[in-house]
Amino acid sequence: MARIAPNPVKGTRDYLPKDLVRREHVFDRLRTTFERYGYEPLETPVVENTSVLEGKYGEEGERLLFRVLKRGQDLESAVASLGEDRSAGALSRQLADMALRYDLTIPMSRVIAAHQNEILLPFRRYQMQPVWRADRPQRGRYREFYQCDVDCVGSRSMTVDAEMIAIYNDVYSALGFSDFTIRVNHRGLLDGLMEGCGIPTERRVAALTALDKLDKIGERGVRDELEKAGLAAESVAPLMEAIGLAGTPQAILDALRPTLDRTESGRIGLRELTEIFEALSAMGVPAARYALDISIVRGLAYYTGMICETRLNGSQLGSLGGGGRYDRLIGMFLGRDIPAVGVSFGLERIFTAMDELGLWTDQPATNTQALVALFSPETLAASFALATELRRGGVNTEVYAEPKELRPQLSFASKKGVPIVCLVGPDELARDAVTVRDLRSGEQQAVPRAEVVAKVKAALASA
Amino acid sequence: MARIAPNPVKGTRDYLPKDLVRREHVFDRLRTTFERYGYEPLETPVVENTSVLEGKYGEEGERLLFRVLKRGQDLESAVASLGEDRSAGALSRQLADMALRYDLTIPMSRVIAAHQNEILLPFRRYQMQPVWRADRPQRGRYREFYQCDVDCVGSRSMTVDAEMIAIYNDVYSALGFSDFTIRVNHRGLLDGLMEGCGIPTERRVAALTALDKLDKIGERGVRDELEKAGLAAESVAPLMEAIGLAGTPQAILDALRPTLDRTESGRIGLRELTEIFEALSAMGVPAARYALDISIVRGLAYYTGMICETRLNGSQLGSLGGGGRYDRLIGMFLGRDIPAVGVSFGLERIFTAMDELGLWTDQPATNTQALVALFSPETLAASFALATELRRGGVNTEVYAEPKELRPQLSFASKKGVPIVCLVGPDELARDAVTVRDLRSGEQQAVPRAEVVAKVKAALASA
Repeated sequence: MARIAPNPVKGTRDYLPKDLVRREHVFDRLRTTFERYGYEPLETPVVENTSVLEGKYGEEGERLLFRVLKRGQDLESAVASLGEDRSAGALSRQLADMALRYDLTIPMSRVIAAHQNEILLPFRRYQMQPVWRADRPQRGRYREFYQCDVDCVGSRSMTVDAEMIAIYNDVYSALGFSDFTIRVNHRGLLDGLMEGCGIPTERRVAALTALDKLDKIGERGVRDELEKAGLAAESVAPLMEAIGLAGTPQAILDALRPTLDRTESGRIGLRELTEIFEALSAMGVPAARYALDISIVRGLAYYTGMICETRLNGSQLGSLGGGGRYDRLIGMFLGRDIPAVGVSFGLERIFTAMDELGLWTDQPATNTQALVALFSPETLAASFALATELRRGGVNTEVYAEPKELRPQLSFASKKGVPIVCLVGPDELARDAVTVRDLRSGEQQAVPRAEVVAKVKAALASA
Repeated sequence: MARIAPNPVKGTRDYLPKDLVRREHVFDRLRTTFERYGYEPLETPVVENTSVLEGKYGEEGERLLFRVLKRGQDLESAVASLGEDRSAGALSRQLADMALRYDLTIPMSRVIAAHQNEILLPFRRYQMQPVWRADRPQRGRYREFYQCDVDCVGSRSMTVDAEMIAIYNDVYSALGFSDFTIRVNHRGLLDGLMEGCGIPTERRVAALTALDKLDKIGERGVRDELEKAGLAAESVAPLMEAIGLAGTPQAILDALRPTLDRTESGRIGLRELTEIFEALSAMGVPAARYALDISIVRGLAYYTGMICETRLNGSQLGSLGGGGRYDRLIGMFLGRDIPAVGVSFGLERIFTAMDELGLWTDQPATNTQALVALFSPETLAASFALATELRRGGVNTEVYAEPKELRPQLSFASKKGVPIVCLVGPDELARDAVTVRDLRSGEQQAVPRAEVVAKVKAALASA
């Protein structure tokens, strides 16, 4: 037989069982937490019409779309009528009619318009699905990767903004993280500060871009960048002072109040953040888990109010997730604005962080809990009956495929990480017993047939 | 704002929360059953290199692939060097480098070759992922749909073939089906019968194709088709007689033994089916749930031994799933044969059947169990604290987004199917109580604050 190269597409991964046990552990905790807060699942098709995706992700994003080739006569006509412009961009727009999902926000926005009679607002939804980007693959960056978004669409209430931060806290706690900070900020507050400093509108993007780098380049670096952007040291002094403020969110807000009170956006930021921090306190989110951080900026063209970001303290990993309020995006398919707030979870970063911090300790390598070994054709029937009884008792039980010496069967179970092996040989059959071996301890004993299921379950529970 | 058409791609569907509650119910039962038998999950990328998919699905299948357009310079070069043949087939081979997953068997085969040092044989795996086919969409047929496959790779033992039938029985039973039959047959038995009847090798495909239509056209129809295929009535008499046999599998096998014993493939079929039915009996699968049905044929180029198919009795829905042993397919990426046996679950058919039979009765419309209504800004903090306590108690609790009159909040909960609404107003706050309303019964009562979680959990458990 001719061999075909068996590698997966560059930038994509096969998930083997041991990978999926871990991934499912994380996904399950995410789902459980989202549903605890009344968020409901949504799933959209892998492909979208190009008309839905084009013009949404900027020039760079558009270049990264994986497009699906037209088919049949449509393809033949498209090729026959290709114009002069044979650049990849022009060709891809003419030869494809669909593209692979690039993010989860645009499909959700489309769904809200398409199903507006079925969807009640406010609509709390979560979505965990892969997306595709034709980026150059590199360590830790894939072309197919999962995104996980939680959004509440249709409410301007700050109670929902606070809920996002509570969800962050619950999810990261449930995954075993204990030393993280959810940094909260507000676009109105940033605008108010800049207006208060007299930074002209046309320089604000440059100022925010500089501010966003604080974590990487420090206060001194930010000051240099601001100066390069034509913002004199004295004009940004109040902004730099604000960044330097420490203390509880309320203390920082109190310190900034005189400046913020002078502008409309400053007053909005002040009021909304105050409401958010009050709600967080009422929700019982520990104060140590969140902070007001004026250097958090995030996607400039996107967010309109609260913004937030979760980071592990003392780690170089960067953000484990971020989000905020974006009141002017969702409505594009409806023709009218709908307010929305949401956060994303950086799943690949979360996996990396859990690896680094050793948070997988209790994870089994497989969900299979017992292997029934097969001794000889004569004991097959008794072995199958035992397996059926274990399964009915809720034990995930594999039966070895065929009678064989015991050693390779034990080795099979051990390599897979199956903790318990049961054997019914002729001796056991004669004594109405089963040999039960715990591969973790190496302990082995003959158990009366009638007690096997209880014994195996007890052994599994004790681990 | 300009409106963009918000429809999903033709032949694909958005899954809203109420759809996903049902789908997850089915997926969960499938997964649980597969894992009970020691099957482990596998997931592969949505895209595969075209070299992996081409030549695997026949000319028709190839035409139905959704291909991914090349990008950047690769695309420009491909267009620049297009040849004379501008047919869709030729164009699509030159302009695309990847394609969307078409089935789950080829990706699994690729994975087994790519990860042969990590995968222990026999490898028991299940996979539930969407596939894409550029078929003409029609009622009940989609271009994006989920497949669900369970396979055991690397063993020739009939214990595994039997296990497939046991899994079928457990899955369909767990979904609530009670009147179904798993029809079992064997390619060797069919070959043996045809050889025994003296049907020449070159007419066997025609004979099997006719046989396969028994359900649709009846015995008379099959006889006519066979005659049209040049098979005289007398030459197919033993085959027709075999089809007409009724009784237990063993009784049918006994009746066929004289014919089957005359050929090598007949003897193999006889021996293997005998082993399978013995194992099923030892596994405790009720005899009423399976039958030996000599008219089951299935994919001709694919299966090499046992074949099976599940049908609802007295329904026109057709097969809910099928499969069998295919010992000569998996090895294509390895360069050597690996035996395998597996079954598929027809998920869309299963959903349709569950609709028709009303098997959803216990399914909630949402996983959200309680709504905390918001009365006024003054009671926000108490309401949030209550929600946190409910969540910590394991109750999926949504908080209404903002204070409002009670009526629209009740209507919101009712429309979503949330069963319980809790309210902390000023009266409740003064009396340290919570008003708990069960929307299913309309019953409402004031519950002491300290007892609310227990009360809500009891109400949810009682439904």
